[in-house]
Amino acid sequence: MVDRTIRLGIIGLSSAESWAARAHVPALKAITGYEIAALSTSNIDSAAKAAKTFDVPAFFDNPVQLAKHPDVDVVVVAVKVPHHRDLVTAALDAGKPVYCEWPLGNGRQDAEAMAALSRDADVTGFVGLQGRASPALRYIRDLVKAGHIGDVVSTTLVGSAGAWGATIDPRLVYGLDRKNGVSMLTVQFGHTIDGLCWCLGEFSEISATLATRFPMVKRTDTGEMVPKTIDDQIAVSGILQNGAVASVHYRSGSSSVANFLWEINGTEGDLVITSNQGRLQYSDFRIQHGPGKGGKLADMVVPEAYKLVHTCAPTDMFYTLAHAYTLMHKDIVNGTSHVPRFSDALVRHKMIESIETASSTGSRQAYL
Amino acid sequence: MVDRTIRLGIIGLSSAESWAARAHVPALKAITGYEIAALSTSNIDSAAKAAKTFDVPAFFDNPVQLAKHPDVDVVVVAVKVPHHRDLVTAALDAGKPVYCEWPLGNGRQDAEAMAALSRDADVTGFVGLQGRASPALRYIRDLVKAGHIGDVVSTTLVGSAGAWGATIDPRLVYGLDRKNGVSMLTVQFGHTIDGLCWCLGEFSEISATLATRFPMVKRTDTGEMVPKTIDDQIAVSGILQNGAVASVHYRSGSSSVANFLWEINGTEGDLVITSNQGRLQYSDFRIQHGPGKGGKLADMVVPEAYKLVHTCAPTDMFYTLAHAYTLMHKDIVNGTSHVPRFSDALVRHKMIESIETASSTGSRQAYL
Repeated sequence: MVDRTIRLGIIGLSSAESWAARAHVPALKAITGYEIAALSTSNIDSAAKAAKTFDVPAFFDNPVQLAKHPDVDVVVVAVKVPHHRDLVTAALDAGKPVYCEWPLGNGRQDAEAMAALSRDADVTGFVGLQGRASPALRYIRDLVKAGHIGDVVSTTLVGSAGAWGATIDPRLVYGLDRKNGVSMLTVQFGHTIDGLCWCLGEFSEISATLATRFPMVKRTDTGEMVPKTIDDQIAVSGILQNGAVASVHYRSGSSSVANFLWEINGTEGDLVITSNQGRLQYSDFRIQHGPGKGGKLADMVVPEAYKLVHTCAPTDMFYTLAHAYTLMHKDIVNGTSHVPRFSDALVRHKMIESIETASSTGSRQAYL
Repeated sequence: MVDRTIRLGIIGLSSAESWAARAHVPALKAITGYEIAALSTSNIDSAAKAAKTFDVPAFFDNPVQLAKHPDVDVVVVAVKVPHHRDLVTAALDAGKPVYCEWPLGNGRQDAEAMAALSRDADVTGFVGLQGRASPALRYIRDLVKAGHIGDVVSTTLVGSAGAWGATIDPRLVYGLDRKNGVSMLTVQFGHTIDGLCWCLGEFSEISATLATRFPMVKRTDTGEMVPKTIDDQIAVSGILQNGAVASVHYRSGSSSVANFLWEINGTEGDLVITSNQGRLQYSDFRIQHGPGKGGKLADMVVPEAYKLVHTCAPTDMFYTLAHAYTLMHKDIVNGTSHVPRFSDALVRHKMIESIETASSTGSRQAYL
């Protein structure tokens, strides 16, 4: 199947603790078609060390050099959000396609600039809204589009972020501060609502209630109480473009009940998607079909054709990312468009901004 | 326990098909402390027939005469909503306490006038928000108030009305027209949200999305398509007075999944209340407690002390109403205040009006 090896330059592949090391490296090991040709980190010593650890031939402390390196076909940006725009700009300026983790920008304005740059430079910007690569989600989307439950009447999603509650892992402390662009709203809710909208359509109007119920949280390492300025409760509702009414409640921490419960109610039946954890981008979903009118649920198995990777399991955190990389390979080699682009990310950023505006003003918003 | 028999005059106890006959008569048969002393219907022939059927000594086609009858201690109003105000006024004018079915008025203005009349006349107006008499709900409320799950952080309720979907029972056709005051919003959602607010507190601010997804519905008897002007999708969210974020999605028809799923998430654990049908005022609930942080759920059994009626089962449609009558007896004889009053109904009517305003204007509302 694979007719070309794509050489990646990964910005942010530093220590074994980095996101790139924990997710991207195992995802790439699970598939064929890629090699990691270069990496960059913030200083040359850590870059050299990482290059040795991950067996990467070229290393830099300068992302511009990485982007310009002749052995790099595609740049991967896997660092903290406030740096995305500069790094993406460096890659696009070098004429290299880029895969940038979600959230694309630190706010809508960043994302708008990056989408414009990708468009003007005519260089593809892929975004890490990886949920769209999930076999289960692609199957759900196809079921809905094929009219398996008739017309969609309404949908309800109740989810838990698994974090951002009363306590905080020290690695996530930077995600407590609104200005860093990494929050429950942008990341966990962002991935989750992206999956819902990708399957059912965008909101034509949206109302929102955001709140911070734990303004001080305890570090799990030191026990210290630290301030949190991000929202840890997100309730949105509205009308989708197809007329369906959508209600989503996304909470911090974990629930004893519905860490992930997603009902899609149609004129001819229901789909129910559940998981024991609430982050759509990693979830190993159970999909059930109900005939409607209170009828009994029956399990649905994701057909084999949706599973593109067989060397890791749906319960692996990097399973969906391995699928995203597989689809990106197709997009690059075959010119398809499976992986979401910066323009898709911009829509999601606009939605998130509209949710913040709806909550702060109390007025329903549109974002398309 | 019972030290006085209260003599009821029931307005609307007509045929065996009437709501009073299907709910009030069996509820009263299940308990002691009451007798049905009089009834009235819209014409004297049907009243005479009903009096014979239900073995009621006095009958009228005139509610003023019923209210003035010396053998009537308390007037029960169990007719269609547009008639409530006139009939309640007749009872209060006669100085008789009245139990009026919910919705109290055909809109907030009606309810306001009736609450004012009850207050000015110093005659008690009880309202049929019977969910508050449910043993399960009283237990849930006490658990929350006792801090069994710590402070309430958030709550989610997903429910199905069981009706008002694509088809309509001929007996409910009058509930398709917004002007009749009997709708999914006022009745099934009204009872349900009343239970939530009674346990957790009122909303200090509320956003709402209402929609009619089935503007034409099929009569189950004739197959004829008839128009529906009421909302069959209700999504509300907001902040409760205690700061908790609440999200409620209430849908027409039945779901294969969550006909009733109510999570109450606290700092020290979760409560989960489920039922196979979505109307809180009738529901036979399963109550489970979760220790939080994704811990395992354990069933909680409603203590015997909450069960005031043992001659019918929680699955009987009139079980909660039998409890409401039992509590009303205590209120009248002992001067307690268990059963909600017109002032409580007015709060609920104001909330419903605010939901309609929030939906039509797109602006968050307050109603207290």
